[in-house]
Amino acid sequence: MLTVPKTLKHFDLPSLVDQEIVSYGRIYRIGKRSKFWFLKIRTADCSNDTTLIVNKNILPKPTTYSTVAFKGLVQRSPDGKVCEIMASEIIFYGPFEPQDVQVEFGMAPHLLRQKESQRLLTRQYQAIMWLYQKTEDALHSVSRDLGLLRIRAPFITFSDCEGGGEVFEVHSKIKGFFKKPAFLTVSGQVDEETVTSRFLCPTYIFGPSFRSDPSQTQFHACEFYHYEPEIPFITLDGLMDLEENTLKKTIGKLLADEESREFLGHLERDLDSLQQFVDRSFARVTYTEAVKILQTCNKQFERAVEWGTDLCKEHERYLCDEFFGSPTFVYQYPSSFKSFYMLQCDVIETDTQTGQHKLQVCESVDLLVPGIGELCGGSLREHRYDVLVEMMKKKGLKLEDYEDYLRLRREGTFPHGGYGLGFDRLVMFITGAQSIRDICPFPRYYNG
Amino acid sequence: MLTVPKTLKHFDLPSLVDQEIVSYGRIYRIGKRSKFWFLKIRTADCSNDTTLIVNKNILPKPTTYSTVAFKGLVQRSPDGKVCEIMASEIIFYGPFEPQDVQVEFGMAPHLLRQKESQRLLTRQYQAIMWLYQKTEDALHSVSRDLGLLRIRAPFITFSDCEGGGEVFEVHSKIKGFFKKPAFLTVSGQVDEETVTSRFLCPTYIFGPSFRSDPSQTQFHACEFYHYEPEIPFITLDGLMDLEENTLKKTIGKLLADEESREFLGHLERDLDSLQQFVDRSFARVTYTEAVKILQTCNKQFERAVEWGTDLCKEHERYLCDEFFGSPTFVYQYPSSFKSFYMLQCDVIETDTQTGQHKLQVCESVDLLVPGIGELCGGSLREHRYDVLVEMMKKKGLKLEDYEDYLRLRREGTFPHGGYGLGFDRLVMFITGAQSIRDICPFPRYYNG
Repeated sequence: MLTVPKTLKHFDLPSLVDQEIVSYGRIYRIGKRSKFWFLKIRTADCSNDTTLIVNKNILPKPTTYSTVAFKGLVQRSPDGKVCEIMASEIIFYGPFEPQDVQVEFGMAPHLLRQKESQRLLTRQYQAIMWLYQKTEDALHSVSRDLGLLRIRAPFITFSDCEGGGEVFEVHSKIKGFFKKPAFLTVSGQVDEETVTSRFLCPTYIFGPSFRSDPSQTQFHACEFYHYEPEIPFITLDGLMDLEENTLKKTIGKLLADEESREFLGHLERDLDSLQQFVDRSFARVTYTEAVKILQTCNKQFERAVEWGTDLCKEHERYLCDEFFGSPTFVYQYPSSFKSFYMLQCDVIETDTQTGQHKLQVCESVDLLVPGIGELCGGSLREHRYDVLVEMMKKKGLKLEDYEDYLRLRREGTFPHGGYGLGFDRLVMFITGAQSIRDICPFPRYYNG
Repeated sequence: MLTVPKTLKHFDLPSLVDQEIVSYGRIYRIGKRSKFWFLKIRTADCSNDTTLIVNKNILPKPTTYSTVAFKGLVQRSPDGKVCEIMASEIIFYGPFEPQDVQVEFGMAPHLLRQKESQRLLTRQYQAIMWLYQKTEDALHSVSRDLGLLRIRAPFITFSDCEGGGEVFEVHSKIKGFFKKPAFLTVSGQVDEETVTSRFLCPTYIFGPSFRSDPSQTQFHACEFYHYEPEIPFITLDGLMDLEENTLKKTIGKLLADEESREFLGHLERDLDSLQQFVDRSFARVTYTEAVKILQTCNKQFERAVEWGTDLCKEHERYLCDEFFGSPTFVYQYPSSFKSFYMLQCDVIETDTQTGQHKLQVCESVDLLVPGIGELCGGSLREHRYDVLVEMMKKKGLKLEDYEDYLRLRREGTFPHGGYGLGFDRLVMFITGAQSIRDICPFPRYYNG
């Protein structure tokens, strides 16, 4: 069924000795001996370098990073170990000014980042792109095995939901195009809850989310792929099991795949630490316990920790990088700084000094990963209409902005929950890339 | 590894007779006999209806479309043919006002469309959503078999490229967020050409595209999934082969999948016509030949056909629905109304009356499908810098707006081509849905 021109990978060269093939490749290294060029060529479909021998008569001046289309005879190398190709015809596609195209193997990521387009010529970059695809395939496969239905949430939304992350506005030249203000989605969760509730089916979204966040750290981008499962009748423990299993199975699939291991090798990624991620249990700690750990450890933080305020990067880092030394779930955060839609639960704490008291927390959970920070955030959702309305009022939200969400409760919903995974951060973790700008060919970020 | 609560599909009921299970389901039909309710329940993961028998004591007032979580004993039905569940515990999640939830099996699509959220309760809608996923899976699998690397094009772009379809603008509350005007992508092609050229690898994009098009036909939506392969060294014939093969293999995979056939059955889709699509060759005709066919047929068109003007819907329909009665490739359109980036080629035509003359056409191809119209549009790309610049000037484009695109040529590119497929239209064709608004849970369209 092959209908695309054959790349080098499509040919089994040893079986084609003394036969002619037609293919193409990019020149990565140039050698010469008497009247011949010895060109190391490759294509980016994970093929190895192949030597193309070309008479200088038919190709006077090859340059690196140029492309050649050729017809040639497959032959054994003099030592018989590999196959080479002796070109009989060649067409050369090179740059006007070869010296303008300059990227090198092993060039530092921050230098490559300045050559957004040319960095695509490097093998390390190509390895990241293949791993991006393979991670996505693995995640879809794991999700399918769990019986999750992939659904589509809209990208253009009509609520600047969650209040949190800044949203981008969408404008048309045609006035009143949608009859109401439109935004780019920051999360498909609200719409997904509708589908999950109506379908009564575990679902997931895999699509872009957008944040107009003026952050320039290596972990922030304005557009990223968001993986968001939503599950009927799940418990908070079940949600943590689901996250842990999904991540371990996904990375496990990559480690079991020879090509993926080869790409990770190009990136000099430490496979043992990925294997450890798969093999070892993640730590699980309540927010309240986490606060106690942070308050009683001997570490000096820039900002002190107090029950009722969110954890900072430095606190999160200490917990997962130092204290637990493993991926760490922190759960049951105070309701005060978490989203209105999270399931409320009171936890009774017995304090030896002050006696019993009630902590107002919600069934939320964040997953912290060493070197990355927050990788997933999730919760059970408040399915009880009255409690939801009360919390929305407490948070100062306008009920009419969330009419569809409230209507879903009035029309009958049930306990459910889910989480969001920043897919690009997962690929950062897997590939060991230093910046989210390194795992996508054309990253979008704050440029103010 | 199961970490999501078990839906009915997860249980092999015949092997569980006399055992208790815990699960959940939605009530689709209510019967009663003496002191019991006989509830037909299901979940949306393609499970069949199961009878749940509940003592009226523990559930006084069931309503359709309500959800129940239950514990129950699996038992054989009196006739021994199927398994039923006798509930011992039940939790009921129903609407406040059951009469507000009203959708019926077989309800007309235009009525369902007015109940955007409630229509998700219907089996026909659930079948479409599963088929959407299965079509996507099949397309990815076919692409992987072809050796295409899936890549990510940005969703936010900085050129309102192609001039064609209106673009949405993206605004941040933060002034100068990107330092230049930003838009939502209408096609990933330009960026993808960069990746394909640099990687020297056949690639494809599967991601959303956006059109701020004030069209309200059943074929137009403001956001849709766009499948865009881009292939080095492909010919126009090869491109047509690729399109035909990709579509046939994708639909072939669905027809070979039992669950998919079941879903198509729920939708009363004519499987024979899908099989014909797979089995029969697509017609191939040049634009010039198509014009002759249209000019010499006996059909009266609202707009007459003239060489050098684009074909209208009525012309396209006649060609594929009537004249050929099959999917039809129309290729080598005049350069005058096609995009600047298409590979220019002169075709010499011998006319018996006027002698030889040169037709200025480009290596473009549209695929017309009966009942749908244009499903794919593609071309070879102009890789020759000088010819590209000349065409851009002719079209009145500013060269500086396309600097990256031109630079790619200066830095060395080679013949390549690709096409775009409106994925949502493909799902319309497969499911037989009457409107693009029926194949996505929350469609976005012009509402002016």
